[in-house]
Amino acid sequence: MSKTIGVIIDFLTDDYRRQIDAAAEKHGYTTRYYPDSASAVGNADDCEILYGHCSRKVISSAKSLKWFCCCWAGVDQFCDGALYHNPGCLLSNSSGAYGVTIAEHLVMTSLMLLRRQPEYTEVIRNGEWRVLKGGIHSLYGCRVTVLGAGDIGTEFARRVKPFHPAKITGVRRSARPGDGAFDEMHTTAELDEILRETDLLVMALPNTPDTANILDARRMALLPEGAYVINVGRGTAVDQDALIAALGSGHLAGAALDVVVPEPLPADHPLRGAKNLLLTPHVAGNMTLPYTQQKSVSMFLEDLDRFVRGEPLAHAVDRSRGY
Amino acid sequence: MSKTIGVIIDFLTDDYRRQIDAAAEKHGYTTRYYPDSASAVGNADDCEILYGHCSRKVISSAKSLKWFCCCWAGVDQFCDGALYHNPGCLLSNSSGAYGVTIAEHLVMTSLMLLRRQPEYTEVIRNGEWRVLKGGIHSLYGCRVTVLGAGDIGTEFARRVKPFHPAKITGVRRSARPGDGAFDEMHTTAELDEILRETDLLVMALPNTPDTANILDARRMALLPEGAYVINVGRGTAVDQDALIAALGSGHLAGAALDVVVPEPLPADHPLRGAKNLLLTPHVAGNMTLPYTQQKSVSMFLEDLDRFVRGEPLAHAVDRSRGY
Repeated sequence: MSKTIGVIIDFLTDDYRRQIDAAAEKHGYTTRYYPDSASAVGNADDCEILYGHCSRKVISSAKSLKWFCCCWAGVDQFCDGALYHNPGCLLSNSSGAYGVTIAEHLVMTSLMLLRRQPEYTEVIRNGEWRVLKGGIHSLYGCRVTVLGAGDIGTEFARRVKPFHPAKITGVRRSARPGDGAFDEMHTTAELDEILRETDLLVMALPNTPDTANILDARRMALLPEGAYVINVGRGTAVDQDALIAALGSGHLAGAALDVVVPEPLPADHPLRGAKNLLLTPHVAGNMTLPYTQQKSVSMFLEDLDRFVRGEPLAHAVDRSRGY
Repeated sequence: MSKTIGVIIDFLTDDYRRQIDAAAEKHGYTTRYYPDSASAVGNADDCEILYGHCSRKVISSAKSLKWFCCCWAGVDQFCDGALYHNPGCLLSNSSGAYGVTIAEHLVMTSLMLLRRQPEYTEVIRNGEWRVLKGGIHSLYGCRVTVLGAGDIGTEFARRVKPFHPAKITGVRRSARPGDGAFDEMHTTAELDEILRETDLLVMALPNTPDTANILDARRMALLPEGAYVINVGRGTAVDQDALIAALGSGHLAGAALDVVVPEPLPADHPLRGAKNLLLTPHVAGNMTLPYTQQKSVSMFLEDLDRFVRGEPLAHAVDRSRGY
């Protein structure tokens, strides 16, 4: 039985297929493209490698699987070792493919909140043409904190720098020197103190037990009155009821959520009625940007070279850590 | 009769008043604060200097006026020499105070157009939670052209650079070397050629006879299919009927106008129904951002030092040129 790479990506184009086929052939693999996960279940027994948006069912049914390269960044649903036939099966993700698109979302929503753009949208929608009382705010002089200073947070910080914020502070689980994108870098142990001096809190965290509910009512209260919160990553990081209350009382001036619990968000969910809350339907990242697609394919093919040579994968996920 | 500085600013605070009073006293001036232009007409005969949002009526009635410092950037309505009692009366503006806030508006609207944010606003408003077909675009790899590469255009270019556009091209009336913010700098004589290679056209021009209708139907057709247009500065620079048509046909993928003709824009104006048009009610600049207010006051006071010493004003307007 020939060695097979199974591919399940909904953004497949002739170009991506050519790139994947050429690399596979070079390494003695054949390729098989599945239109979706459902059609792969039970039909992927010979796949040594799977790449793409695979369901848990596909993974657990693939008896020869040695490596699953997920084209999402968040892989918490694939970290359970019991999912895999082969306990040594490798897992990698596409963290690094999303930095560009999510950083753009973060800059856009930061400016939309600070400049009261959702309110101006309503002014125009109502057929009016007027300046809102109370003025607007700016990234200039703003104290920006990035909770989750990984690829996404760093790409955001690099883009915010020329707006002259007062300070960009990165916060990560484990201490690591910054790369110049941040003015300061701290660990989550110091988070409470940092929140007290944060005008704009940007959260880009993976979904792990440590990050669940990390922004709860107590921490929201530490933020100065009039602060803003933006969350990408995973909705579980924010206490949504506390957020609705903090927006309603005016303690927070605004928030933007691209990720929520549950998704899809029901039409009658209380979040939809929250004051000054900018919702987007989990599109900050996603595969909507061609750059992200190409980057994910390229990262897979780079790791394929390493896999074949028996080297560690550059985008390997530590299943015990969850990212 | 003591020398008087008349001030008409709607953002007056105790702090600004203290700053202006201190500088005036230093130079032997008294100050008078008018709540608005109407109350100043006929009551500003002793004002040697006027600073602020003054109406044409105030200017033409101020018999002793030697210098009018306008706190707007656009001063086309004050360039007619017949307006002034004293033909040698100096005119200065607050160009330079608006770069920060308008550059933020430009980055925000660029990203909103490229990422289809107005459509996503509708998705959420409709109680839905879904990804739009057809994907989004990015500043990454985008060919950005800035028509009007002055203070505002340059501040925008500096902020766009870390987004990795393919190229940032500046276009100005007269050739002048860039300051590193632009990859290339051209004159308006080359505009037609540059438009053919522009994905995102950002216009930040003063209102002069040269700039009126500079983006007409012919030039819109030179832009590649799917290009985006953003205009701040003055509404007269864009042929609005041609824009509505180009958006309707899909030749342009989207546009954002902060300035229109006329302002305020009537509730039933055809622009309000244009496809993929993001309207804002002339708030890109304006005095809504405290930074802008302080900068305008500081620029006035710096020029006051120069005026008293008989030196040329740093923010002088050439009335024959219009900016």
